[in-house]
Amino acid sequence: MMKARVTVTLKNGVLDPQGQAIEGSLKSLGFSGVGAVRQGKVFDLALDGSDEAAARTALTNMCEKLLANTVIENYAIEISN
Amino acid sequence: MMKARVTVTLKNGVLDPQGQAIEGSLKSLGFSGVGAVRQGKVFDLALDGSDEAAARTALTNMCEKLLANTVIENYAIEISN
Repeated sequence: MMKARVTVTLKNGVLDPQGQAIEGSLKSLGFSGVGAVRQGKVFDLALDGSDEAAARTALTNMCEKLLANTVIENYAIEISN
Repeated sequence: MMKARVTVTLKNGVLDPQGQAIEGSLKSLGFSGVGAVRQGKVFDLALDGSDEAAARTALTNMCEKLLANTVIENYAIEISN
């Protein structure tokens, strides 16, 4: 059993209105010096087996097919255990 | 200028219907051996200054006040540079 975390973030240049709204809210709450806020997604998964290379291949396929929109998003895969 | 990443995840025991839906979709796409899918959020921010301790305090306040719902969510803060 392995644990994996997939982090999906918007590519540079892709507009992020949600991030901009959060940045505006932080500023109106009095947090100064905050900028370039971007929101992304994180997926935590448990995977059967202990073959890390096979898990990484499967996770890459999951990202390409479902977890990320690779036109506008990047993904990063971390595997533990 | 420092960069920070805040990761917000659901606490253990909090139901995650979105994660369950993703898990179901992965299985119907043919990915077997996947379980315990949980979805969370990630925020990337840029912060003025170079005082890491002050930045961590500010980020903790941002999480408590806006970025996380601490009733049902945990948050983790990473600072780089």
